[in-house]
Amino acid sequence: MPRKGKQDGEAGKKEYLYNRIREQVKVKLKEIGGRVISYFDRGEFPEIELPSRTTTNIEYDDKLRQYVLGPKKSLRTTRNIKHLRPFTQLMWMTMFAKQLVETRKTSTLRDAFYNALGFGIDFEDQQESDETVTELETLVGTVREDFNIFPEERSSVFGRLVIEYTVPGYEGKRLDLTTIPDGAMIGPAMTTAEFVRCDAEQVIVVEKGAVYQRFLEEKVSDNYKAIIIHTAGQAPRATRKFIRRLNQELNLPVYIFTDADPWGMHIASVIIYGSALAAHVPELNVPDAIWAGLWASDIQKYKLPAMRFNEHDAKRVLDLEKDPRYTRDPWKREIGVFRKIQRKAELEALSRYGLEYIVTDYLPEKLAEVTRR
Amino acid sequence: MPRKGKQDGEAGKKEYLYNRIREQVKVKLKEIGGRVISYFDRGEFPEIELPSRTTTNIEYDDKLRQYVLGPKKSLRTTRNIKHLRPFTQLMWMTMFAKQLVETRKTSTLRDAFYNALGFGIDFEDQQESDETVTELETLVGTVREDFNIFPEERSSVFGRLVIEYTVPGYEGKRLDLTTIPDGAMIGPAMTTAEFVRCDAEQVIVVEKGAVYQRFLEEKVSDNYKAIIIHTAGQAPRATRKFIRRLNQELNLPVYIFTDADPWGMHIASVIIYGSALAAHVPELNVPDAIWAGLWASDIQKYKLPAMRFNEHDAKRVLDLEKDPRYTRDPWKREIGVFRKIQRKAELEALSRYGLEYIVTDYLPEKLAEVTRR
Repeated sequence: MPRKGKQDGEAGKKEYLYNRIREQVKVKLKEIGGRVISYFDRGEFPEIELPSRTTTNIEYDDKLRQYVLGPKKSLRTTRNIKHLRPFTQLMWMTMFAKQLVETRKTSTLRDAFYNALGFGIDFEDQQESDETVTELETLVGTVREDFNIFPEERSSVFGRLVIEYTVPGYEGKRLDLTTIPDGAMIGPAMTTAEFVRCDAEQVIVVEKGAVYQRFLEEKVSDNYKAIIIHTAGQAPRATRKFIRRLNQELNLPVYIFTDADPWGMHIASVIIYGSALAAHVPELNVPDAIWAGLWASDIQKYKLPAMRFNEHDAKRVLDLEKDPRYTRDPWKREIGVFRKIQRKAELEALSRYGLEYIVTDYLPEKLAEVTRR
Repeated sequence: MPRKGKQDGEAGKKEYLYNRIREQVKVKLKEIGGRVISYFDRGEFPEIELPSRTTTNIEYDDKLRQYVLGPKKSLRTTRNIKHLRPFTQLMWMTMFAKQLVETRKTSTLRDAFYNALGFGIDFEDQQESDETVTELETLVGTVREDFNIFPEERSSVFGRLVIEYTVPGYEGKRLDLTTIPDGAMIGPAMTTAEFVRCDAEQVIVVEKGAVYQRFLEEKVSDNYKAIIIHTAGQAPRATRKFIRRLNQELNLPVYIFTDADPWGMHIASVIIYGSALAAHVPELNVPDAIWAGLWASDIQKYKLPAMRFNEHDAKRVLDLEKDPRYTRDPWKREIGVFRKIQRKAELEALSRYGLEYIVTDYLPEKLAEVTRR
């Protein structure tokens, strides 16, 4: 965007990220409605083409390094009486999303479901209404957060970054993330904020709250010039998108630390390669992020207290082995180690060498190891 | 504290809440060790008296309006070879807690467990080490957060309150909670902050993230002069203590909104009356807080979409009926309604009347109703 553009308009009003995204989404939502109306105008039965989201139409794209939808489409037509119900549901959800964007309010999946009930839209249960939201994502080509349906879960962030809010009521207000010692939540306001100043040189993503807190206390943000992110388990999509922006807009390398078990490994892989469930929305993943630990091989290398796999863990490792995302190292190698040792360890296991060990010894060793490769 | 006291000392250094609490705790931890050493000095086997935490020694105190421990004690003596192991574990935990307080670092229960392992302290599993932390709470007479063992879960807060941090590195720095549009986390820094300015007139506590977000967006903080707290399910103890401080230090009434089911009702009751599990630590509860909704009777009154109880819900209501905390209204009355209708509803069910309804209609009606009584 040319500099001049930013200074034009009503009293130099800025064009904020929040509004920019919502404007694009609104155009697409209107198009969906417009197309339906044009059928009516021509005296025809409205129909909509939806990209098919069946497993047979989900492909792993090696170039994009993420899951994407294949070329199959399915036609939803009001000629077919069986299609009338899901067609109506989708229309209502489109209207609801447009309302959210226009009134600049947010909602959750659950709120959307109850709103529909009150409107007399017949959803069997929330699962059915969630499914309709996913269909709408497919049509609009973006995550539901962009039409203001947010999850309840929140991750958090701390580090040498100054953001500028763009949500209603806070436009232009800035926050230096180092001023909030407990870390700041990655909620609707954070995910739509602009990055205005950053003197971090890397992003460190951790699965566990205990490790996040340890990194904050040991000043990893200063000593490693890092932005630290706590995913709180599987990273919500808003958080994945936030990490992607840090990586792409600010050109920061991203290192991910999870527990050494098949579940932790998968948390890292979803951030890097995306999830099959979200194959219908592009640009959620961070292909250049690096899984830095805790690896299965770290259990042996660092002599960590480890627990025996349960049945569930063992089966999960076998499942992951078949996944196209796990055919290269370090994934392939670490899956091999897991299969052999049949044990798992948590990041906190490094505390056996004292609370600071993870910061003073493990972190620098691992960062050196993964950047050397 | 007299004004003069605050200005004395090194260059008018303030005596911060964080340090004040830690100093008190340190004195008690040292006492525990000192007593053991004095046994050695006299050539005797050390022993420790612990308040008994068996269910037969937990009493509901009508005056304090919370659960407390009864008078029973149990003796742990190193004369008895069976006591040697838990005695040593408790001693180690006392040392670990003193270390945390002195180095001003925080830890989680899991970190404490792994630290012990590295030290060669033989804990069977984390449950055993958690139990030792609870014993230490009983001895010190305060929650583990006061000796810097914090939970991973975080609630959050938004509202017309200015706090001053007292944690290391942030002493004296202030935060106006209205400047963080996503809300601020109730972590170690928030719970040890001093309240420096407040122009709120009440505290509204909600169980659900969706409702919290709605209240933030609809400016409940301005329109009702409220501090809004999101517990994220069962309120962590640090959050309960934080709400208690808002109530007692700032003299603000507290209103709690939960889902209309036995689990939501219990979230409210634990904030108000405390939990049996925490009977060994005083001053965690908020006896004057008011459970304002969502009541079982609200399901009928507001014609909310409700779901049938499952077996689990039905049994839970019968269990709660026997609990001394539920013998008065509104608890008793609402349990009666639950038993009759065998249905439950979530706070979000109010969205059937539109997203704003909970703020524009339900909230003022309920606040009027519960304050009139």
